[in-house]
Amino acid sequence: MFALYQGQARPGNTRQNLGLVRRAAAEAASAGAVILVLPELFISGYRLDGGLDSAAEPLDGPSVTELRSIAAEHAIALIIGLPEREDDRLYNTAVAIDAQGRLAGSYRKIHLFGPDETRLFTPGTEPRVVELAGYRVGLAICYDIEFPEMARALVRAGAGMICVPTANMQPYVSVPTTLIRARALENGVPVIYANHCGTIAPLTFTGDSCIVAYDGTDRARAGVDGEELLFSNTGSLFPAQEADLLRSTQLVDLRL
Amino acid sequence: MFALYQGQARPGNTRQNLGLVRRAAAEAASAGAVILVLPELFISGYRLDGGLDSAAEPLDGPSVTELRSIAAEHAIALIIGLPEREDDRLYNTAVAIDAQGRLAGSYRKIHLFGPDETRLFTPGTEPRVVELAGYRVGLAICYDIEFPEMARALVRAGAGMICVPTANMQPYVSVPTTLIRARALENGVPVIYANHCGTIAPLTFTGDSCIVAYDGTDRARAGVDGEELLFSNTGSLFPAQEADLLRSTQLVDLRL
Repeated sequence: MFALYQGQARPGNTRQNLGLVRRAAAEAASAGAVILVLPELFISGYRLDGGLDSAAEPLDGPSVTELRSIAAEHAIALIIGLPEREDDRLYNTAVAIDAQGRLAGSYRKIHLFGPDETRLFTPGTEPRVVELAGYRVGLAICYDIEFPEMARALVRAGAGMICVPTANMQPYVSVPTTLIRARALENGVPVIYANHCGTIAPLTFTGDSCIVAYDGTDRARAGVDGEELLFSNTGSLFPAQEADLLRSTQLVDLRL
Repeated sequence: MFALYQGQARPGNTRQNLGLVRRAAAEAASAGAVILVLPELFISGYRLDGGLDSAAEPLDGPSVTELRSIAAEHAIALIIGLPEREDDRLYNTAVAIDAQGRLAGSYRKIHLFGPDETRLFTPGTEPRVVELAGYRVGLAICYDIEFPEMARALVRAGAGMICVPTANMQPYVSVPTTLIRARALENGVPVIYANHCGTIAPLTFTGDSCIVAYDGTDRARAGVDGEELLFSNTGSLFPAQEADLLRSTQLVDLRL
């Protein structure tokens, strides 16, 4: 079983946000989930100002250390976004932590969105597929997944599913419906898209977090607003056999 | 105004199918449409057997000549699919005919679907953007458009809209909803998807033909079954200004 947490991170309150992660991990693990996916920049809150700069840590800093301890304690793998500091650079990063509390891998957002992200962060350059709970998981963050090229690159690199911490805001309501379903369907892999909800003025997040199966159909979908923990059995997310795949997963090399 | 015809071509009855085109063109033109899009292999019917071979013609053959006369008579541009013969080869082709009855261009389907199409047709190799009624129109046929690479290639080649004669059948019901809306949204261009309806045993076509605006929202959508002529004003199909485009149309070169 996979789980997804949609919630409202508090900017500037790392302690409280880690508390939300701990509670979600405990509930997800006790329901039997092996992987829990949480939103983009959830540790800091999606606040693109100086507060974000001061919340950024290296991957051996206190927040990732705490996340590793949460994962190990509840024996559940976590995928979650946070601001990463390396030397004098910041990255918009997602970490993948396994159920033993080890850092299985991390991914730095390639497609930064808008002037604020572009000003604060250095873009990543490498797509990342991590091994987690026996699955090959492709990582993408928010705006990344709007580009069909990104999902295709992850699948070509061996991803059997794609997990997307996100902070999708109004007015981009078609992203969690049209585009996320299309990415799943056109690649024949499940997509787990974990969003913020609520408002951090002037932004209102769209919620609508979802777990979409390989055939582009919803297995679970959150409301527009409010904290939610979603689950999906793993069996229904993957094709039972090659013949179940939509035609379009027979990739043709266009050579265009 | 653009128009789309969803209908039931009769295999082996080129004369009757051309009659349907003539009637649709007359109605669409009198409503003020400047372009009418019709389904894939509409002149022959979507019948992948020897009957299709005998219905195939070169582009200066009687069917295209008749289509040119229909377009000129009603002063409306046509985009429609038919089996093209060149020497001993068959192609699954879409022709674009302008409102003066001139052949503005033709496109040979690149992504042939399944063993029957693959056996009968030689695949095309060149995507095609034609100038029609003042628009730069990218052409794709059915299975082509399930690949995000195809729509991207057309837009990169200058297409400001994409027209898709199709013969989409059960069980692929997510194509006209999820994938067509995604192609429009992720490229910021309208997509017109003209399908067959009804049954040619053992195939049942899904109907659901649609005109989708640049933002991935429907402007017109046909039912699952039955002949329909759909219309959309051109104004609402295109962004009024650059700022109206979805974020994802800011193409990032992934260099992956």
